[in-house]
This record gives sequence, structure tokens and C-alpha cells, in this order.
Amino acid sequence: MSQRRLRVGLIGCGRIGRVHAENLSLRLPQAQLCAVCDTTRASAEEVAGRWEIPQVTAEPEEIFSDAAIEAVLICSPTDTHADYIVAAARAGKHVFCEKPIDHDLRRIDTALEAVRNAGVKFQVGFNRRFDANFARVRRAVVSGEIGALRQIHITSRDPAPPPVSYIRSSGGLFLDMTIHDFDMARFLTGEEIAEVYTQAGVLVDPAIGEAGDVDTAVTLLRFRNGTLGSIDNSRQAAYGYDQRVEVLGSKGSVATANRFPNDAVISDGTSVRRDLPLRFFMDRYQESFVAELAAFVESVLEDRPPAVSGEDGRAAVMLALAARKSHQEGRPVRVEEVG
Amino acid sequence: MSQRRLRVGLIGCGRIGRVHAENLSLRLPQAQLCAVCDTTRASAEEVAGRWEIPQVTAEPEEIFSDAAIEAVLICSPTDTHADYIVAAARAGKHVFCEKPIDHDLRRIDTALEAVRNAGVKFQVGFNRRFDANFARVRRAVVSGEIGALRQIHITSRDPAPPPVSYIRSSGGLFLDMTIHDFDMARFLTGEEIAEVYTQAGVLVDPAIGEAGDVDTAVTLLRFRNGTLGSIDNSRQAAYGYDQRVEVLGSKGSVATANRFPNDAVISDGTSVRRDLPLRFFMDRYQESFVAELAAFVESVLEDRPPAVSGEDGRAAVMLALAARKSHQEGRPVRVEEVG
Amino acid sequence: MSQRRLRVGLIGCGRIGRVHAENLSLRLPQAQLCAVCDTTRASAEEVAGRWEIPQVTAEPEEIFSDAAIEAVLICSPTDTHADYIVAAARAGKHVFCEKPIDHDLRRIDTALEAVRNAGVKFQVGFNRRFDANFARVRRAVVSGEIGALRQIHITSRDPAPPPVSYIRSSGGLFLDMTIHDFDMARFLTGEEIAEVYTQAGVLVDPAIGEAGDVDTAVTLLRFRNGTLGSIDNSRQAAYGYDQRVEVLGSKGSVATANRFPNDAVISDGTSVRRDLPLRFFMDRYQESFVAELAAFVESVLEDRPPAVSGEDGRAAVMLALAARKSHQEGRPVRVEEVG
Amino acid sequence: MSQRRLRVGLIGCGRIGRVHAENLSLRLPQAQLCAVCDTTRASAEEVAGRWEIPQVTAEPEEIFSDAAIEAVLICSPTDTHADYIVAAARAGKHVFCEKPIDHDLRRIDTALEAVRNAGVKFQVGFNRRFDANFARVRRAVVSGEIGALRQIHITSRDPAPPPVSYIRSSGGLFLDMTIHDFDMARFLTGEEIAEVYTQAGVLVDPAIGEAGDVDTAVTLLRFRNGTLGSIDNSRQAAYGYDQRVEVLGSKGSVATANRFPNDAVISDGTSVRRDLPLRFFMDRYQESFVAELAAFVESVLEDRPPAVSGEDGRAAVMLALAARKSHQEGRPVRVEEVG
Repeated sequence: MSQRRLRVGLIGCGRIGRVHAENLSLRLPQAQLCAVCDTTRASAEEVAGRWEIPQVTAEPEEIFSDAAIEAVLICSPTDTHADYIVAAARAGKHVFCEKPIDHDLRRIDTALEAVRNAGVKFQVGFNRRFDANFARVRRAVVSGEIGALRQIHITSRDPAPPPVSYIRSSGGLFLDMTIHDFDMARFLTGEEIAEVYTQAGVLVDPAIGEAGDVDTAVTLLRFRNGTLGSIDNSRQAAYGYDQRVEVLGSKGSVATANRFPNDAVISDGTSVRRDLPLRFFMDRYQESFVAELAAFVESVLEDRPPAVSGEDGRAAVMLALAARKSHQEGRPVRVEEVG
Repeated sequence: MSQRRLRVGLIGCGRIGRVHAENLSLRLPQAQLCAVCDTTRASAEEVAGRWEIPQVTAEPEEIFSDAAIEAVLICSPTDTHADYIVAAARAGKHVFCEKPIDHDLRRIDTALEAVRNAGVKFQVGFNRRFDANFARVRRAVVSGEIGALRQIHITSRDPAPPPVSYIRSSGGLFLDMTIHDFDMARFLTGEEIAEVYTQAGVLVDPAIGEAGDVDTAVTLLRFRNGTLGSIDNSRQAAYGYDQRVEVLGSKGSVATANRFPNDAVISDGTSVRRDLPLRFFMDRYQESFVAELAAFVESVLEDRPPAVSGEDGRAAVMLALAARKSHQEGRPVRVEEVG
Repeated sequence: MSQRRLRVGLIGCGRIGRVHAENLSLRLPQAQLCAVCDTTRASAEEVAGRWEIPQVTAEPEEIFSDAAIEAVLICSPTDTHADYIVAAARAGKHVFCEKPIDHDLRRIDTALEAVRNAGVKFQVGFNRRFDANFARVRRAVVSGEIGALRQIHITSRDPAPPPVSYIRSSGGLFLDMTIHDFDMARFLTGEEIAEVYTQAGVLVDPAIGEAGDVDTAVTLLRFRNGTLGSIDNSRQAAYGYDQRVEVLGSKGSVATANRFPNDAVISDGTSVRRDLPLRFFMDRYQESFVAELAAFVESVLEDRPPAVSGEDGRAAVMLALAARKSHQEGRPVRVEEVG
Repeated sequence: MSQRRLRVGLIGCGRIGRVHAENLSLRLPQAQLCAVCDTTRASAEEVAGRWEIPQVTAEPEEIFSDAAIEAVLICSPTDTHADYIVAAARAGKHVFCEKPIDHDLRRIDTALEAVRNAGVKFQVGFNRRFDANFARVRRAVVSGEIGALRQIHITSRDPAPPPVSYIRSSGGLFLDMTIHDFDMARFLTGEEIAEVYTQAGVLVDPAIGEAGDVDTAVTLLRFRNGTLGSIDNSRQAAYGYDQRVEVLGSKGSVATANRFPNDAVISDGTSVRRDLPLRFFMDRYQESFVAELAAFVESVLEDRPPAVSGEDGRAAVMLALAARKSHQEGRPVRVEEVG
């Protein structure tokens, strides 16, 4: 175990902030959660009470100005990310920021410039890169096990749509959900996407359409090197959280299955069956949330480049914006059109 | 077993013609293969010798004018299909025709009009509809088992590319290969496709590109009812013939796996593995070739509508032409643009 | 295709006799079914009518004395096997005999001696050896893929018990059902079994117990070379015909799954499931019934040793008798005790 | 989270003791590991240092006499278990004891009597009962999902044999390894075993035979209610830790698969494969080790009966002794013979 513990402050005690608070408290002995902040102070206090965190505040500034804090986790609403990144970087804090960095590329650029100028570490919360299944796919690609890449297909479906209130502030399906899949496509292939074409609609719940969003989408990807891909998105899958990829190469393919709570198979007079896959994203990706923070903490403690860079975070936003534009304009969109 | 046996003539003794000749001879007691024809007479003689077929000719006219023959199987090159259909229909023969009917929609219309005018049965050789896996998917859709349709994904990859000589006369990937998948998409969903967008390239073999074709394609589908879909095509899959579909509905999904020569799993110090899936299309689809002919024969003997209509054959060609146009023009193409 | 066709007579037109008649008629061009016999003449006539077999009789002697017949398939009740084998062999006919050869080892010896003296081919109907799954297991063992053998586990369960009338004349579970598994154990390992210990009971249907038989059994096997094994038998499996094996060796294991009518997987709000495995033995083992006859016919036409010898047939009966004795006496039984 | 934390002392800082120390420190906030003891004091100090445990000793008596300690975990060598149980119980401590309680039934009885007299909680370390797979099998049995029980088959193989030095003091395969499977058989069926018959040998490593033990065994089980079962044991499985069960009932079966580090499937020109199953027992059963301690802690805090009783621990030892006797005497052994 590492002797030194990274002193961390957490901003934003919503759902994902609480996941990180628990992981920092229970599963990451190499870090120490010293302070928690939420503009709703009661939220911060609840988290602090549960994990015995000494410092509680409703003012992010208190985190940035606390000399004892070395790194900041930004888990607040998306529209606050860029400002907090700038403030944290200027205060010399290393930054872990939830995705998306922002919905606006110029604001992202400002934030990343502040990070570069300050020379601090910066990691974006694309936790799925740290999942054992996707990591295995990446290894198959990198090692040459499947040869030169030709096709990738990503299936990414939520068990059930979030509340419409959430959807309204989410930036829409592409910036909220597909963004993970764009990052996955880049991560798994190691290649950049040149063009996207999206067909999307409201097939799950009309209320989502009334909120100005779509709930079902298929996005076609053309990579710069000629690799072709597609992403299936749905806000609802009756059977649970559906997170799979398949990559075809010249020597073969690699494909993942969903993860299940157990491996028991029941055979009776009607069918051969098993229980549903893990339904809740925190069950499905629990280990990856731990692993992404461990990677961030180690990148700081050992002064190595973070596993997911600011450029990765920016690229995924660009792709999401291109997909949204493609959907809006009904035509293929080259990614540089939105850059 | 049906008492009466349908008297059949076969035109075209190439690869697929021989599959039908064997099935008619060994596995379809309700039919009798009376005559075989190939413009390369030696080919026809070889087939006739093997299956003890009394009548052999190099002249299709002999088949059409033979009053004893009730039905004709057209397995000759695509550019002869339309003329043979017209001739057979005018002679009052029922017609089974391999796909595609033709590459030209007007010639297809002429052929189908002749069929309608003659009042004969007409079936197109989309054998995959008769495969146990895809039939099960269709049942899941029709029965409401998976609810209202939302997404379909079709994977269709050949084990290895055909000779470039074949590719030159094949009409290209979309008319030769994707055409099956377009039919599958229509068959499984029971819905019509409104728009396609295709990205395609040469990732397998430059010689295919030099022959003016592509070998890798991803095609995005928008159905009239809003269902979204995609098709992955590749002329090469190192692991064998890859033929799968997944359909997502409001109540769940149905997905097929490939078929394997055996179900043995070997676990040793390196992996848990099984033998490769069936590699050859005649092994993979053997039963479906028998079943499609059985269905055709029964539709004649029992005077019922054929399982795959001329309109089905035409629709698949339209979709293939639209996909080709989309690829050529780099934009989504509404299917009626090619109609 | 072999030019010459083996001229075959079939004795016994019950269930399994009809399977062979169909296979000889439709699927084995290298053989010709010339004559069928059943002491219930109507049965023979029905089969002859269906497959257009020229010669029909209720007298087995007519088959034996017909000089044109080269080989005889014995599918009559077990208690007639030995006599028919002797008569056929003396008449110089090659013999294919359904299992078990007989329930009595001395009668088996007499029959096999007649075969040896006549110098004719003799094959026992252990069709499962020709199944693609079990053949793959055998290859894994023979090729050294799993190393030196250590354990074998055989699961063999019928979908539902046969009528009690059948059970009464079947010789009991061990001679009727486990006999296949004993042959499988010998075939897959290539080793002889030294001792068996059986625990059995009536857990499915009391009527089976009243008929003097058991319906559930577990049999432990000790092979001469130290390999250990077990066989699970049940006359009923709610989910269908259950036929699997697993072999453990020093380098790994090989295990088979059941065979299914399709490979579609349905995921909905309750489970991830597939349709039941093939339920009927003729569906499950259809190809193996064809393959065993093809092997027999070829062994005659090409003068090679049959794939399943008389000694194989005898050994399986000995093991079944030893299992029955073990059950009756409640102790492990060395196989030579019953020899 | 429970407010009160159970104060625990740990005796024995070997491999399994360290697993429990880590789980108590990181994953069980409802308990507090206050003291660790190992007769090799350096071992205890190492564990204490790692998990910041205040109290360290080489004298178990210090644990028993410490009034602040409410519960004791006994992870020391088997031959010390009984004495420590007695001492702990007399001191009024609740006891969690690793399996087996002892190799001698009378010493077990003495220990359990002390526990009863003291009125303390007592749980045996059959962690596999808390594994998600086996728990699901148990639910299928209890809920009636598979109907009345008929057969059970347990596969239990280690990836590689332990050092011969360990084997010498382990009590042999039956008391060290099969004991888990006996407990599993009782747990899953909820039934008592009446008779066992074991065939065993040395097929993995002659050194194990020279140490007086066997490395491969198949054990046949007859339950009091007529259910039949078998257990496959091997000290070596090239492919990793192999832990599966199958239970057949009147309405169907339930079967488990092994657990894998990821769910990626690679298909290339040679096979369709996945990575090996989890190899190390602490990876395979990590969650069950946490869950068994959580259950123990809760049984104390909430004054409920422990999930695995002293009688369960005794019954498994009886079965292991009966299996050993069966192996030694080459005959079926009724379990009461060893009681």
C-alpha cells in the first residue's frame, strides 16, 4: 500500500458524488477525503456524517483555497464544471471532473487551458474504460489478437429513462448518454472518428420528446482510418442495463456480454433461463468507479499522465455535438464541423 | 406425405442449382425433378447423372415448352432471370427464382407483371427466412413477446470473399450480400424501410476495390414506423460465417447466436473455447434451403400464396440500390428515390 | 458416391426399425433396402409401402435365405436378437443389431461366435458414438488435447418415462438406458471399467417401481487405469432430453451442452432465456442414426472393421448387469463377477 | 449502517486469517477488529500494522480474557480449534470458527457443548453458502422452482494442489476439501445424507500419495429422502478453480457455471474462446467471505441464530469421516457408522 495518502476535496454530493465519497472512504486507502462541498449544505453534511469527513462546506471556494487539499473531484452540475476546473487549476489543485466537461467547446478549451497553464493533473470521469470487460476488449485490439480493425458495434441501453426533469438539464441523449459510447469507441479502437450520422426518435416515452429530447438512437461512425462503426442507444431496456461492444478485425472479433448477479441456469418445462443482468449502473460499474479514482490518485502520487485526458473529454463532447447536429439536420456531419 | 408430386424443371446447374437438385432428389418427396438445364450442357449432364434425372438440355426453351413440367426453378445468372421468369410465366409454369430477381427495377416490374398476368405462383430465394434461428426471432416479434419494435441490428459476414471474377458480375456487395439482410430486416420486423445511409469501404482486399466494389459496409436503416436499425457487412470473418440478428422491443429483446458443428467446450490452461461456427453457407443454411423449396412446392400443390413474394424480391433490390446510391453520393437516401 | 449399393434386409418394423428404413431410403444412397420383415405383417407392409420396398414378409427366414440380401438389420425385440444373429451369420449375411445384443451373456457369446465363424461384419447400434458432440469429446481425448484422463461424468436423462408396458420388457433401466452410457464411457475414454457401484430408486413414478424397475440412478465407475466416473440417469427431465458428458484430464476438460432447436435468446423483464433443448431422441440423434448406418454400410463395402464391435456390445451388457447386481446387493461389484 | 460496532478479536494470522482481517477492516463497518493474535507474533504484528489494529498478542488467552472483546474469530490450525472454542465460550465470547471444527467428533461435541452452555453465538466458516451462485441454487430449491429433489451433482476442483507439507496436516482430501462439498450438498438440498461411497486415487501427483492422501475422488451420496448425488473432486484443474453444482428436481434443474474475470469472447481463425475462470479461491469467493462475516456479526448484534450452526459443522465432519472410511474399506458407509 502507498504510504502517502492524497488529500482530496469533493464538490457536488449528488448521486455520483456519493459514489466517489464511498469509494474514497472505504476502498481507496491511498486517498483521504478531507472535505466535501455541496451548495445544498445538508447534502454535504449527510455525506460527511456518513463517512466521517472532517470538513464540510457549501462554498466551493473554501475547497479551492484550502492549502491542505491537493486534488478536487468535481461532481457538481455540468454548467459549473468549467468554472470550477479553472478555479481549482489556478489554485494548483489536481482535478478529476465528471463527464461531460461542458456542453460548450469554447468553455472546455478555456478550462483545459487553465489546467495546462497550472501544470496540474486532469482526468475525466469516463469510468467505463476501467471496466474489466471493456479493458479486455482494448487488450485484444492493442495486442493484435484480432488484427487490423474493421468494424465496431456498441450497444448502450439504460434499464429505464431518468426523470424528465433530469433529461431537461442533461444536454440531451447525445451529451448525456452517447458521450460514454463515443469515448468507448475512441478508447477501444485508439482511432479518431471523422464523421457521424445519427437517426434518432422518441420510441420510449412521449414525455421525453415533449422535453425536447430523443430516447432512441442509432449512430453510424466513420473513423479516419476507414474503420466503420455503429452505436445503438435506448433509454429503456426491459431486461436491464445493456452495455456491450463487438469489434471485428482482420484476424477475428472480440465481443462482450452483459454482467449478471449470478451464473445459475434454470431449466424447466418452459425454458432454459437465467436471472436478468445487473440493472443499476452502480452495480454494473462499481469496480470501474473504484478503478478510475485509483488511477487518478496514482497518476498524481506517481506523477504520471492521467488515464483519461482533457482532450479525451473534449473529443467526446465534439462527437456528441456532431451527432446532435446530424440528428437535427438529417445528414452526415464531419466532426470538424462542430470544432 | 403428399400423394401428388410436383413436376419440376431446373434451369442453371451452378453452385446453388446443385443445392436445389440434391434437395429435390433426396429430401423433398413431394416434388420430382424431371428436367435439368444449363447452357453449359456438361454441367446439366453431371447433375442429371448424379440424381438420375431423365431429361437434360442446354435450351431453357425446352423446359418452358414441356407440358409435363409444372414449375421451374431459375438458378441461372442474374441477368437471365427476368427473361426466364417471363417465358416460364407465359408457359403457365410456377416459378421459383434465386435472388436477386434482377438489378433493374423496370425489368423486375416486367417479370412480376408477367407472373401476375399468368396467375402462377412466384417465390424468391430468400432462404434465410426459413432458418430456425431467424424464424424464432420472427415469432418473438409477431407474438408480441418483445413488445413494440425499437431497434434491429443485423450482422452478416462471409467467412471469406468470393473470387474477384464473381464480384465483378455480382452487382456489388449491396445487391449480392446486403440484399439478404434487407430482406431479413423487412421479414423480421414486418415493416418497410424509409431511408438508408451507408458507409462502406475496402478493408479486406484491395483487389475488390479495384474491381469497383466494397468489402465492408455499415448501413443505417430508418423504418417508416420509426424503428431504427443497422447492418454490419463484411466479406471476411476469420472465424467463419457470421449471421446474427438482435431486435429490441418495448418488452425485451431477441438475439440469435451463430450455429456450431458441435457443442463441446474445451477448457485448458489457456482458455475456455469451442470449435468455430459453421463456415460454409450450405452447412449453415442447409435446412433452410430444403424448407424454402418445401414451402414453394406446397404453395403450388395446395394453392396458397408463396412465403416470399415477388414484391419481397423487388423491395430488397430497391433497398440495395438505395444503399449503393447512399454510398456513392455520401448521403442518406430515401428508398422511393430509387423506385 | 459409392457406385455399388449394399443390399439390405430389415427385420423389425417398430419405432427404431422405421428410423432405419427412412434413413436407408432417403439418406443412404450407398445402400438399398430390398426387404422388410415384421412378424406383424401389417407393420412391414406399412413401411414397405411408404418407402417403396419391393419385398415384404412376416418370416425372418425369408430374409436369411434370400441370396440377394447381403446385410441384415436386426431391430426386433431383444429376446430374438441372438437367434437372428446366428441365423443371419450362418446365411453369410453381415449384421447390424440394435442394442442390447441380449440380456444374457452366454447367448451373446453364442451369437458372437456365430459371427466370428461366418466371418461376417457385425455392428451394434450404439448410435451416440456417431453424434457430433460425443465424437468431438472423443477427439479431444484421443488427440491428447486434455491430457491423461482423470474423471468422467455422464448425464443421461429422458424427457419422460416410457409406458410401463415397455418398462416391463425392457430389461430395466440399466439394460435399457444406462447401457448407452456404459458404452459412451468406454468409447470416450478408450478404457475398460473395473467396478461399478449404483444407487437407484423410484423418484419419478411409483408405477415404475411396481413394475419392478427403478427410474433414477447414479452409478459410480472405477476404470482399470484408475480413472473415476459417474453416470446420472433419470427417466424424466422436465426440460427435455438431457445428454451431456464432461471429461477431466491432466491438461484440461471437455464438456458438451445439449442441442437446441434454435439459438435465439429472449431477454425480457423476467429472465434471459432460450427455448428448451430437443426433446425427442430422433430429433436429438437424427444425424447419428444416419451416420452409424453409413459406417456399417461402408465397413461392408470397403471390408473394414465395423466402428462398434460385438465385443463393445457385450461389454456394455456386462456393465449393465453389474450395475443391476450392485443395486440389488447394495455393494460395489467388480465387472468380472458377472462375466 | 448499524450504529453499534461489534468488537472482534482474531486468532490465527495465516492465509484465511488475513482475508478476514482485511474484510473486517475495509468492508465491514459494523465490526471493529480490536485485537489480533498469532503464536508467531511477527505474523500478528504484520497484520496489525497493515490494518492499524491497536492490540497485538501471541497469547490467545489475552484475547479470551479481554473484557472489551465480544467475539472471536478462530483461524488457527485445526487441532487448536476445539480448545479455543471452549475457552472463548467460557469467557462469554461469540465464536466464528474456520472449518473443520476438528477431525474428532468427540472433541467437536465437547466444543459445541461449551458453546451451548455459554449461550454464545457460534458460526462455522462454510463461506460458500454465501456465494451468489450457490445462494441462487438454494433459492431455486426452497422456492419450489425445480420441484421435488432427485439428483445433485457437485464439481469441486482446485486449480493446483497445495504443498505436500500442507496436505500432511490437512486431515486429507475428505476433511480438507470434500468437507465443503458435503456442506454444500446439505445446504442446497436441506436434506441429510444417509450413506456415502467413495472411489479415490492418486492421479495428479505421486507425492500426494506418498504423503498418505489421495488427490482425485468421486463420492456417491444417498440422502435419507432418496435423493441421489455425486461429488467430483480433484486437486488440480488446468483451467482454474472449478466450483459448480447441478440439482435436478421434478420440475426442472438448476445449474451454475464458473465465474470469470471478464465476459469477453474472442473469435479468431482457430476457436471461439474466453479467458480462464477465476483461479484463486480468494478471487472466486471474495464476496462470500465478506458476506459470511457480515452474517455472523449481524447474528450477534441482532441476537439471531447464526446462518451456519455448530451442528452443520459437525455434520460435514461426519460425512468426511464416512467418505474416508468408505475409501479405506472399499464399501458404502452409512453415516451413522462414524457417529
